[in-house]
Amino acid sequence: MIFHGYFRSSAAWRCRIAFNLKGIEPQTRFVHLRREGGEQKRPAYRALNPQGLVPALELDDGTVLTQSLAIIEWLDETHPEPPLLPADPARRALVRAFAEAVACDIHPLQNLRVLSYLREEIGLPQESVDAWCRRWLGDGLAACEALARRHGGDTRFTFGDAPSLADICLVPQMGSADRFGVDTSAMPRLREITAACAELPAFADAVPARQPDAEA
Amino acid sequence: MIFHGYFRSSAAWRCRIAFNLKGIEPQTRFVHLRREGGEQKRPAYRALNPQGLVPALELDDGTVLTQSLAIIEWLDETHPEPPLLPADPARRALVRAFAEAVACDIHPLQNLRVLSYLREEIGLPQESVDAWCRRWLGDGLAACEALARRHGGDTRFTFGDAPSLADICLVPQMGSADRFGVDTSAMPRLREITAACAELPAFADAVPARQPDAEA
Repeated sequence: MIFHGYFRSSAAWRCRIAFNLKGIEPQTRFVHLRREGGEQKRPAYRALNPQGLVPALELDDGTVLTQSLAIIEWLDETHPEPPLLPADPARRALVRAFAEAVACDIHPLQNLRVLSYLREEIGLPQESVDAWCRRWLGDGLAACEALARRHGGDTRFTFGDAPSLADICLVPQMGSADRFGVDTSAMPRLREITAACAELPAFADAVPARQPDAEA
Repeated sequence: MIFHGYFRSSAAWRCRIAFNLKGIEPQTRFVHLRREGGEQKRPAYRALNPQGLVPALELDDGTVLTQSLAIIEWLDETHPEPPLLPADPARRALVRAFAEAVACDIHPLQNLRVLSYLREEIGLPQESVDAWCRRWLGDGLAACEALARRHGGDTRFTFGDAPSLADICLVPQMGSADRFGVDTSAMPRLREITAACAELPAFADAVPARQPDAEA
């Protein structure tokens, strides 16, 4: 299978962590989101993913999967060990809801196409764009801190002593928080979980700086 | 169980369709998103859902589920008939990806808190806010049209002859497209699916105008 990603995309980063946790190494293709107007907008890439977003995963039979959460759930269903979701349906829903609090309510508001629109089509100055990012990252991660405390305050990871889909989504988003200068000092639980994840090679090897397409 | 929603929220609307398809009628509580600064921001509601967003589902044992997709997957796992996802893992991933193309990449950009920020904190005039909505709805639904054609162009619903999670997400988003004046004439497949859904009582009974908390 062939994974199409970009080192800095947090959606691609989530998938890299999941592949690493499962011990699977897909072939990779790099889609440079900032080169020549964005390689993700070219017809060749849109033929794979009409959304023009990374990631995309080409399966061996030619089926193309898109959307990081759908890709990770597919990976978990086809390669069950180690599981990325608990067995109990209500616990599965809590883990998925935490992941979606990141993937639906934080990340889409500060991805490249939205920030480009704010800058180029609305004409916002960079400081207002940065304030926008900090607002949604700050509010969203504060809610995640509350959810993490409610559901697993004494475990190594967000929902237990093994990493789950929740941690896979949290870690790249905490990376964005650092990048945009969000103050996470009031989120000790999220920082503790992020630090625990960083000790695992599956997470450490997935960071943007260690990818072949990484730039300074 | 107790479902907390709001008639106009498309995330709550998705859940209403899913409950109807499963033949389940939870108790309901209405969270008025526009009354007195927003009931969803009050401490009593944030104690249920720290994100301050609808929907939330209180289970009989006190567990509170949030995020519409997580709630619907829980419902599908605990009440398997009729199924809302196919059995094959790759097909499940395609249905989930379509749902997430709506739930991650369209809906969060035009929900109430984001439009309020654009109007009140950035100071955008209403016509620019409307243009923002039409941009993300238009681009997002155009990609959904391409995905729908690729994966099920000759079926009654997006992914087959029975409704799935994809249709559950599509229909409320097409409702938003109408509300914001998006031109969907180049999306015949999505319109055809939306019309097929409207013929089912599970979809027809879930529309905002038919809810007890509906306003003109």
